[in-house]
Parts: sequence; structure tokens; C-alpha cells
Amino acid sequence: MIERIAILGTGLLGASAGLALRAAGFRGAIAGWSRTPESAQLALKMGAIDSISADALQAARESQVVLLAVPIYATLDLMEKLSGVLGSDHLVTDVGSTKAQISAAAARLFNAPDRAAFLPGHPMAGKERGGAALADAELFRGAVWLFTDDPDAQRSPHSAALVKGWREWVAAMGSRTIDLDPTRHDELVAWVSHLPQFVATALSALLEDEVGDAPELRDVGGRALREMTRLGASPYSMWRDIAYTNTELIQAALHALEQRLAHLRENLRTPGLRDEFEQANKFRRE
Amino acid sequence: MIERIAILGTGLLGASAGLALRAAGFRGAIAGWSRTPESAQLALKMGAIDSISADALQAARESQVVLLAVPIYATLDLMEKLSGVLGSDHLVTDVGSTKAQISAAAARLFNAPDRAAFLPGHPMAGKERGGAALADAELFRGAVWLFTDDPDAQRSPHSAALVKGWREWVAAMGSRTIDLDPTRHDELVAWVSHLPQFVATALSALLEDEVGDAPELRDVGGRALREMTRLGASPYSMWRDIAYTNTELIQAALHALEQRLAHLRENLRTPGLRDEFEQANKFRRE
Repeated sequence: MIERIAILGTGLLGASAGLALRAAGFRGAIAGWSRTPESAQLALKMGAIDSISADALQAARESQVVLLAVPIYATLDLMEKLSGVLGSDHLVTDVGSTKAQISAAAARLFNAPDRAAFLPGHPMAGKERGGAALADAELFRGAVWLFTDDPDAQRSPHSAALVKGWREWVAAMGSRTIDLDPTRHDELVAWVSHLPQFVATALSALLEDEVGDAPELRDVGGRALREMTRLGASPYSMWRDIAYTNTELIQAALHALEQRLAHLRENLRTPGLRDEFEQANKFRRE
Repeated sequence: MIERIAILGTGLLGASAGLALRAAGFRGAIAGWSRTPESAQLALKMGAIDSISADALQAARESQVVLLAVPIYATLDLMEKLSGVLGSDHLVTDVGSTKAQISAAAARLFNAPDRAAFLPGHPMAGKERGGAALADAELFRGAVWLFTDDPDAQRSPHSAALVKGWREWVAAMGSRTIDLDPTRHDELVAWVSHLPQFVATALSALLEDEVGDAPELRDVGGRALREMTRLGASPYSMWRDIAYTNTELIQAALHALEQRLAHLRENLRTPGLRDEFEQANKFRRE
């Protein structure tokens, strides 16, 4: 039933979604728009999109489903603009990493009977570096794709059907969907996504200060160190909007870890260390 | 020239060394001893050793090279016992994760002209779980094998030749050797090995408290979370001796990371966050 999709933002997630839709058998039109023309050209060349649109709003108007695959503040900005030009025959969905502000904007700007539907989404997939060049049709396979839909959304039968259709394509791309309340979403990802990222950043930055002048010694850490610092390569540009839109919950998670590290530091020679290892082992139980 | 090796301790590292020696073409005898008979039986069955010795000291006496592959305090204990029964036609070497105490014991008990040689070693290889069952002939390939030999060691030509011979077998097993001062070794591994482990333990223990009751939500974190907590499965039994023998340097590293995390927490909305990401990116530059 969905025959025309516009992907606004053809970076890693946007271009991967295009490739994954094709791999899952989507035969309709996929228009692409990007703030950087090279990115859209690359996505076109890879087959992630089949046309480039110079105008994001026009591409959206001409499509049934609009996938916003840009950073969070750019998503909020596009939501404002799109709400004025789309109607009840459209669905807008996104891939933003925090959902409280986006869900609030959706309730304000969309999901009324005469307006477009908005389904807030967040695929838990990515790479430590972005860009269309790393796009991958398999990026979403086996990943969880979170939705924080509004139970009070008022939708036309047509846009409700688009929501159902998009959920089916997400499943066809290989993702498992989980529905969460937006506040619970932001709290959960603060723990399982944002905290690990900021720990990897702090650990990598600290190690750069301590052993950065002796690169041969970095090899000493082996696989364990490589894994614990892989996310250290993540760009600030990707994480700034997350830090700004989930500040308090990230602060709470970081503070809890600081206290946990201090506790471990004070108990290196007491049974408290054994207790921490046992608690950690539980998290990794099969 | 080395024809008889005794492996004392047939867990993950000991049994892997036996398999790796065979894979590298070692055709001499490999005797194995373990505190737990099942472990030695398993190593024998896998071909990591070709005989089981019931007596560690006798196995050592009958060999030219003795590889100690037991926890650090057990290594120190065996060093005391072996120094009384071995002579200048023997080399003892080890795989202990901290080297200051072992190197000090080596200077006191070994490395005199009428005594056995001792070469303190530390292969930077392992898995998050131990035991002979996980032994792997390829475990040391591509890894760094650190040595903290004593430049003042007094050795017979025979035991000096055994040292040279063992270093060649380590290279044949696929490891790159790096020589370090024992104090510098312990400082370096506090940063690149012990800190990452204790961070993974603290993070895993914290997340078990926070989301452990909702195991389906752990999947939300995806690959990034799995990597950042993989070492959370490491057993206390393996890390207790490391915590006890490198306490001050580990405390210093943990304290530095606590401060770094606090700095990041206080700068989530300032240019300080960008600076931390840039410094972290440097550590992961190619």
C-alpha cells in the first residue's frame, strides 16, 4: 500500500533504510533529499534512493511516508515545516535518538484528524562513524526498532493504515519493534546507549592523554581495549543533540557510574569487589 | 634445543600455550600439571599436553622450560618452591598479569649463576571466561607478549640459551614481544587492561541494578552495549590477584576516570563536550 517514500537525510541511517527497503522487496519510489548534495548523489549511486529532490518539503508532499533521518534538532525543525504542508494522507516518522521532545512536537503538530500522522521511531543500529558511504542493507537486521507512539493520536483511517504499513516494513527490514512511552524511552537509552557512549568517550580521551604518545603500547590492550574504546571514534556532531535533549537523564546515569567506580576503587581489597563482579556477571548471564 | 616443557596450570592460557606450541611445530614433550585433575585430563584429551604429572615440582625438575600458568599468588607460591629444586639448566617463565611482585621474587629466588633462570612474561590474550575447554591454538596470534626481564640477571650460558629459545617459541606462536621495565609494565596495564576491565565490571553491575529486571530491554543497547559489557562476564577469581597486586596504580586510573566522567557530566551542554569527543577521536585515529 505504501508506494512513495521520501527519505530526508541520506546519511548512514537514511541510506541504509533505502537499501534495506529495497532488499526487503519494496518496489515503490524512494526520493531522497540531503543538506549535502554529495551525500544524496552517493545514496543514489548505491541504489538507496532512486531520485534526488532539491526541496525537502516538495519531496515530502509527493510521498506517502516521510522518513526523517537527520540529527534531532534538524528533525524538530523539519517537523515544524512539514506540519504546515502535509495533510491526513501522509505519515512522517523519524530515527531520532531521544524521543521526549520529538514526541511532544508530534502531539503539538501532527496526529490530529486533519493533519499528517507522526510515528516517533528509533532504530537501535548505527556505526561509530556516519555517512552514506557506510550504508548497509543489513544494518537493521537483528536490531531493535523502538517506537514511542502516542496512544491519544487522532488519525484518519488512511494515515492509520500508513502507520501499520510502515511498521510492517520495519519488521521486513529485520528489526524487532518495541513500543515504549517516550519518557521511559529516554530513561532507558540514557542507561543502555548514552551511558556506554559517554564512558567510551571519557575512557578514550583519558587514554589518549596517558598513552597517546606511545601508540605501540595501545596494541598491548588487545581486543578488550579495542572494544571498550571503539565508540571513542563517534563524532561530536552526532552526539551533541543527544546530550542537549537528554541532559538530565544522562547526568544521572554518569553520576551513578562515577559513584560505582569510586565504590569499586575503595573496595579493591575487600569482599566488596567480589560482590561487584558477581553483580556484573549476572548482567552477562545467558 | 628446548625438548621438554612443563606447563603448570592447564587452564585457558596454559592449555592454549600447549596447543599453540604444537601448532607452531614443537615436537618435544609437554607435561601438564593442574590443581584440578579434570582440567589436566581435558588438556590431555585436546592434545595441549601429552602427559599428566601428579607432582608439579617433579614435572618441573624433569623439564627444561617450566611455564607457570596459574593466578598471581599461586605463581609466587610455586616460585618459592621451584627455586629450591631447580638449577641452572632450567628456565621458569610465567603469564601473570602484574609483574612488579613476580619480578622482585625472580630477582630474589632465580637468575643467579647457580640457579634457574626466570623470565617474567605476560601474554596480552585471554577470554572473558577461563578454563581448558576454551583453549585455542590461535589465542596468542597477533597478540602482544610482554616480558619484564631483569637486565642484571646472572645466567649460565645454558639457561641464557633457554631464555632465547623460549622467546623464539613465543614468536612462533604468533605473538609480538615487547620488553618493559616491571614498574612501567604494571603502570601501563593499569591503564590499557585493568581500567577497561573494572569499568566494564562497574558498568555491568550498575546496569544489572537498573535494567536487570527487564532483560528484553538489554537487547535495546545492541552491539555497542554488548561490547562495553562483555568483560562484565569476567570472573572475580581471575581478577582478585590483579586487584591485590596492582592496587595503587588501578586506584589512580579509576580515580582519573571518575574525574573525567564528572567533567564530561558537567559539560554536556558546553564546548567542553566537543573537546572530549575530539580527544577521544584522536585515540581511535588510524
